Amino acid sequence: MLIKRNAISIGEAVQKVMSDIEKGVTEKVTLVEASDRYLAEDIVANQDVPAFDRSLYDGYAIRSEDTKNATNAYPVELEVVGHIGAGAVFHNGIQPYQAVRIMTGAEMPEGCNAVIMLEHVKELTKFDKDYIAVDRFISEHERVFKKGQEIQKGTYLVEKGTRITPGIIALLATFGYSEVLVGKKPVVGVLATGSELLEIDEPLVPGKIRNSNSYMLMSQIEKVGAQPKYLGKLEDDLDKSFEVIRNELENVDILITTGGVSVGDYDYLPEIYDRLGATVFFNKIAMRPGSVTTVAKLGRQFLFGLSGNPSASFIGFELFVRPVIRTMLNNKEPYLASQKAILENSYPTPNAFAQLIRTKIENHNSTVCATSTGLNMSSSITSLVGADALVVLPPTESGYEKGEIVDILLLSDEGQEDFSVV
Amino acid sequence: MLIKRNAISIGEAVQKVMSDIEKGVTEKVTLVEASDRYLAEDIVANQDVPAFDRSLYDGYAIRSEDTKNATNAYPVELEVVGHIGAGAVFHNGIQPYQAVRIMTGAEMPEGCNAVIMLEHVKELTKFDKDYIAVDRFISEHERVFKKGQEIQKGTYLVEKGTRITPGIIALLATFGYSEVLVGKKPVVGVLATGSELLEIDEPLVPGKIRNSNSYMLMSQIEKVGAQPKYLGKLEDDLDKSFEVIRNELENVDILITTGGVSVGDYDYLPEIYDRLGATVFFNKIAMRPGSVTTVAKLGRQFLFGLSGNPSASFIGFELFVRPVIRTMLNNKEPYLASQKAILENSYPTPNAFAQLIRTKIENHNSTVCATSTGLNMSSSITSLVGADALVVLPPTESGYEKGEIVDILLLSDEGQEDFSVV
Repeated sequence: MLIKRNAISIGEAVQKVMSDIEKGVTEKVTLVEASDRYLAEDIVANQDVPAFDRSLYDGYAIRSEDTKNATNAYPVELEVVGHIGAGAVFHNGIQPYQAVRIMTGAEMPEGCNAVIMLEHVKELTKFDKDYIAVDRFISEHERVFKKGQEIQKGTYLVEKGTRITPGIIALLATFGYSEVLVGKKPVVGVLATGSELLEIDEPLVPGKIRNSNSYMLMSQIEKVGAQPKYLGKLEDDLDKSFEVIRNELENVDILITTGGVSVGDYDYLPEIYDRLGATVFFNKIAMRPGSVTTVAKLGRQFLFGLSGNPSASFIGFELFVRPVIRTMLNNKEPYLASQKAILENSYPTPNAFAQLIRTKIENHNSTVCATSTGLNMSSSITSLVGADALVVLPPTESGYEKGEIVDILLLSDEGQEDFSVV
Repeated sequence: MLIKRNAISIGEAVQKVMSDIEKGVTEKVTLVEASDRYLAEDIVANQDVPAFDRSLYDGYAIRSEDTKNATNAYPVELEVVGHIGAGAVFHNGIQPYQAVRIMTGAEMPEGCNAVIMLEHVKELTKFDKDYIAVDRFISEHERVFKKGQEIQKGTYLVEKGTRITPGIIALLATFGYSEVLVGKKPVVGVLATGSELLEIDEPLVPGKIRNSNSYMLMSQIEKVGAQPKYLGKLEDDLDKSFEVIRNELENVDILITTGGVSVGDYDYLPEIYDRLGATVFFNKIAMRPGSVTTVAKLGRQFLFGLSGNPSASFIGFELFVRPVIRTMLNNKEPYLASQKAILENSYPTPNAFAQLIRTKIENHNSTVCATSTGLNMSSSITSLVGADALVVLPPTESGYEKGEIVDILLLSDEGQEDFSVV
């Protein structure tokens, strides 16, 4: 039962997967739990920032016009009529040629419009009154952070779906968000197939290998912003496997399987998709590694059939699962960020499939260079260790030479809006 | 009591801070908890990978020499004498002109040295026996992943102090690590000073602002790999503040305070360091923002006195606290990664201090460009939102022009070994 499969391009495959995704649900979390979550509401300024004219320095709040004629030779003397700490408010007005001692961040007293730094005045006392001598003109608003100068109330600041960085945390705290609405993490189940698989705590025996894919994928799921759920291994029995998958679909938002999507005798996934009544978008992609990557949908639920090979499985996740999760989280930049880079290795062999090469990138004097991290095989694990980008080599009749400019996909958490590199 | 402070360069300040750091303690975590933690042990291969000769494809395991004379016109016929699933082992030897059906990943039978893909043979039956017809020469090791081809037992693979990525998780799983030794997260206390500060859930009142720094710093602490601990706010009372700090030092590995390190009347931190008997490394750095950043040490414990201004506090953390935490975690690349980039803005004003400009970076055809994200003020919050790098402009008499190549520090989790940009 060898069925000829039709390989589609990566771009076409991504487009099919991304054509119709249901947004995930939302939940409130406290601000301390909010780091690296995805906003489920737009952040609009609910106040001016600063909310009042603030002094930028420790010094004296004055009236700029009083210093109009101040010079080094003829300094002007201002009477110090008050003292205002940060957080305090000065309730009296001030008269011409008066000043108020003010702390960094404190609200400017009514009538004052500039600040002179403590270091720039001479403090003196005459007849039990305090004065400062100012020896130059202080222009209006000097060292004052004006009300609304940074943010005006009503300004649209951060878009729903944005990942919450420390800077956004600062913004949310400023606006008084002790809780914030974020996307609930989709639960992504991971189910391995393959009777050669041992659990990670089992001793190695002939013919068997430990299940490394499931743990790698759980780590990828976590990094991308979802909740991994380990569902163990399927037995080499079609009926049992079908039952397990049908039941587990009740408990997860997305199901990833590894292995079992090829054309071998124990590759049950195609038959299981069929029995479930799932729509299979594709079962072959013109890419290496990961050509067997299969994506199916049952109602609104995604079923990702990734390769059983580590590098292929890793790449299948980053190209197809990642943007679905990020889109469920409302993130507008669901795809791996892409850049241009200079190839540091040659790939002379013609290839009808696109190649995704695990690479380390380095920046030489503002130019990005990409060097292979090792064995370019579907089954390689070491090439993933230390890889921070994937070089994308489109199908080629002539190969690629060291020094060519190519597209790379960054394996960081940053994303981008479109997927146009392949 | 205005004391003239001596401003040192950023590089000098970093060097002082990093001169003597005690490594943190370690703990065991399960593999599913290990993502983004820092290895506290070197990873050395405890087995060959693959551990045995594996088939890379579904097909037939054969003897290369039997196909020596195979051609399209005169295919060679091999008798199929067994069937071996992944995880199973074929215990019989094979004779010349025999083949064994084999699954992807299965162990090669003794005597076989190559695999021919299922798609490349013709299967036939003669006198109740199964045969395959092979119509070309299959060279030795073709489609076989040789024992130790990827990793040889004893190979030193990942260094202590490395952050655990999904690729490293795959490696650890392969080697049977159900638990892994990682650096225990240092506990970093965050204490705010400033009587103008409201809690994030308090309504805004005249003269006051909400405490945004503490939450921002807790998010930074978490991202860098440590455990944040919010310690609230200090009152404007020297004795009480001293007691709080002395007590909290019992409960944290590192203490960060925000505000109170300037020369104003309520800036108690210098006096508190003195009373504690802490050694103050510096209390002024020739940089903007964050010139008041102070670092002190009491025995083995670091006390970071960051500015009360958001941008200054953010940058003080990334430049000085971050490398200390990462070094405690044994990480060999504790500093923000640096790159070269093209300036997209001009900074014409001479400045005796180094400037750190919050920027967004973009990659144009393999060239990195850095654009300012907004208000270049110590007190700015919005410039932090969306910043993914800091441009470093060393002290200058002539300013900087758009188009110049400058150093940038990336605000990602990646690091680098040396700090040489300033």
